[in-house]
Amino acid sequence: MRVYNFGAGPAMLPDVVMQQAQEELLDWNGTGMSVAEISHRSREFQDMLAEAEQDCRQVLSVPNNYHVLFLTEAARAQFSMIPLNLCRDNALTNYIVTGIWSKMAADEGVRFSDAKVIADCKDSNYTTIPDSINVDANAAFVHYTPNETINGVEFHDIPDTGDVPLVADMTSTLFSRPLDVSRFGVIYAGAQKNLGPAGLTLVIVRDDLVGHAMANTPKLYDYATHRDNDSLYNTPATFSYYVAGLTLKWLQHQGGLAAMAEVNQRKSQKLYQYIDESDFYRNPIPTHCRSWMNVPFILADDSRNAAFLEQSKAAGLAALKGHRLVGGMRASIYNAMPEAGVDALIDFMKHFATHDT
Amino acid sequence: MRVYNFGAGPAMLPDVVMQQAQEELLDWNGTGMSVAEISHRSREFQDMLAEAEQDCRQVLSVPNNYHVLFLTEAARAQFSMIPLNLCRDNALTNYIVTGIWSKMAADEGVRFSDAKVIADCKDSNYTTIPDSINVDANAAFVHYTPNETINGVEFHDIPDTGDVPLVADMTSTLFSRPLDVSRFGVIYAGAQKNLGPAGLTLVIVRDDLVGHAMANTPKLYDYATHRDNDSLYNTPATFSYYVAGLTLKWLQHQGGLAAMAEVNQRKSQKLYQYIDESDFYRNPIPTHCRSWMNVPFILADDSRNAAFLEQSKAAGLAALKGHRLVGGMRASIYNAMPEAGVDALIDFMKHFATHDT
Repeated sequence: MRVYNFGAGPAMLPDVVMQQAQEELLDWNGTGMSVAEISHRSREFQDMLAEAEQDCRQVLSVPNNYHVLFLTEAARAQFSMIPLNLCRDNALTNYIVTGIWSKMAADEGVRFSDAKVIADCKDSNYTTIPDSINVDANAAFVHYTPNETINGVEFHDIPDTGDVPLVADMTSTLFSRPLDVSRFGVIYAGAQKNLGPAGLTLVIVRDDLVGHAMANTPKLYDYATHRDNDSLYNTPATFSYYVAGLTLKWLQHQGGLAAMAEVNQRKSQKLYQYIDESDFYRNPIPTHCRSWMNVPFILADDSRNAAFLEQSKAAGLAALKGHRLVGGMRASIYNAMPEAGVDALIDFMKHFATHDT
Repeated sequence: MRVYNFGAGPAMLPDVVMQQAQEELLDWNGTGMSVAEISHRSREFQDMLAEAEQDCRQVLSVPNNYHVLFLTEAARAQFSMIPLNLCRDNALTNYIVTGIWSKMAADEGVRFSDAKVIADCKDSNYTTIPDSINVDANAAFVHYTPNETINGVEFHDIPDTGDVPLVADMTSTLFSRPLDVSRFGVIYAGAQKNLGPAGLTLVIVRDDLVGHAMANTPKLYDYATHRDNDSLYNTPATFSYYVAGLTLKWLQHQGGLAAMAEVNQRKSQKLYQYIDESDFYRNPIPTHCRSWMNVPFILADDSRNAAFLEQSKAAGLAALKGHRLVGGMRASIYNAMPEAGVDALIDFMKHFATHDT
């Protein structure tokens, strides 16, 4: 039995995508081989990847002066790659810290640049976003994390950084709604939330920011390497790339990002609304920066956590345990989580709150 | 129809492995989720990875003073990671160059160390291995590529480097036969030949060589990061890791590496024997360093290449085109290529040679 998987990532993928992947796993595209067995330099695979790039450009309306790179390295590698590619040694860089992930980006940034944290929401225990930021006009970039998966804090507006390139770790929010790519210098995202299985990081980078890597940059950490080789310099995780391609087709069939945004907003709002109306559950994030993707909530009585997890799992609602830094529960409701899954969760939460003694 | 896939990699995987992957793709291990959808931090996935590590240790008889790391980065990343981890700035390093891949390793090594090529077989057009090598006793390591996939040149003995750590890119030969791991400082291999789909690089490293990375080493390029986090610091390509785990079980069921070696040697010898007896096909590599894994061969008449490729493909023998640097054909016959596949290839070659006019 397939369950509703509320895990933060690797996360649920659309049923129809996984069914297609299963059907053609032994014989892909009439080749007599699995997509996991075929050469990444075969015509079939290169055509598939080129089409996935075009679909990605179409779905996100990526301007022509941006490269769309498919990278094998984990999204975390960007914490190093961003400064290595965007600034010379000891250049000034700016970081906005709104949670664990943006903090880790800043910690790695210090190792390759004169990294300055220009806003840090730790006083709120990372339950909010900064009211305002002061960008250094001579900074090589400003880095931020539009959606923090652990605390469930999200920017609903793009910070204004003037002429300083804005860099965004969009791992847990890219493809959840329309985006004005032209506002960014670099957008990056691990695939394992809204795009596909783990094993792929998407990087969308403005072309003037490529080709200036520091001298000590490893070859695979230089954006120019991947730009110059159509994302096929190294052997990629072919299966992950392929499923991402299928997911992009699925996104198009759903009506694209405007349609996704409508569903995603509705899914999250009904869940927050129930939590707010309940005395039994609580979410500490102010309304203006609540995440559409990750909805953490705590129970009035912590001692009931184990029962909640056990009973929800038995009801086919999986992976609701919250991150240890926050405690309680977390419902990650990415694109592939159907609205029916959120409805089922709310029904379960109501039942548990009523029958819990 | 499944074909015999002679591609150099990503390559054929065992039929039973792919069938199991297909059967459980939508519901793995009773979780109601795909292995491509489950958290890498779930108990189920962590147990699977721990078991894969143990199976790898068992199959290769890895001594206790070696770490077995599963890395997301492509094998090419090791070209940078090896010097970044094994030597201080500008330390002397030694490289043996026997083909394209070992040359690329040396080229990247120059960027992080005082890299010296101590043997280069370019005079033979990379058709042989060095008669002898002179290792610098103060070198941080000696790097070599035991099997060069493009030219089909293989070391059948391990070079003696005394106390200098020996580093081997075993991407296309690891798991093809028993190996004395204790002779090496670092062994690394991309999975996509004998271990699983692309998206995983196996690194086996002696424990005294971990923890001394250069100051400018990106966090994900430091072996210590992966050692300290049981290979789960970043989100890995979960599907690839899982299929590698299945393949290791398959290897055990085949009788382990001694049994694989017997089959692999027989497969390659019968193919070389036919080529040598034929006037129509030719392999230029001396017998003592012919690869068991990659068998390149050229046709007496180059103008027949297209017909050979077309007809072999129609006969269910796929991806036989040789690398553009060598020309002609190449049969990659890794562990998952059944002996029947090699027999079918030889039958086809005989038929083509006889009926070609």
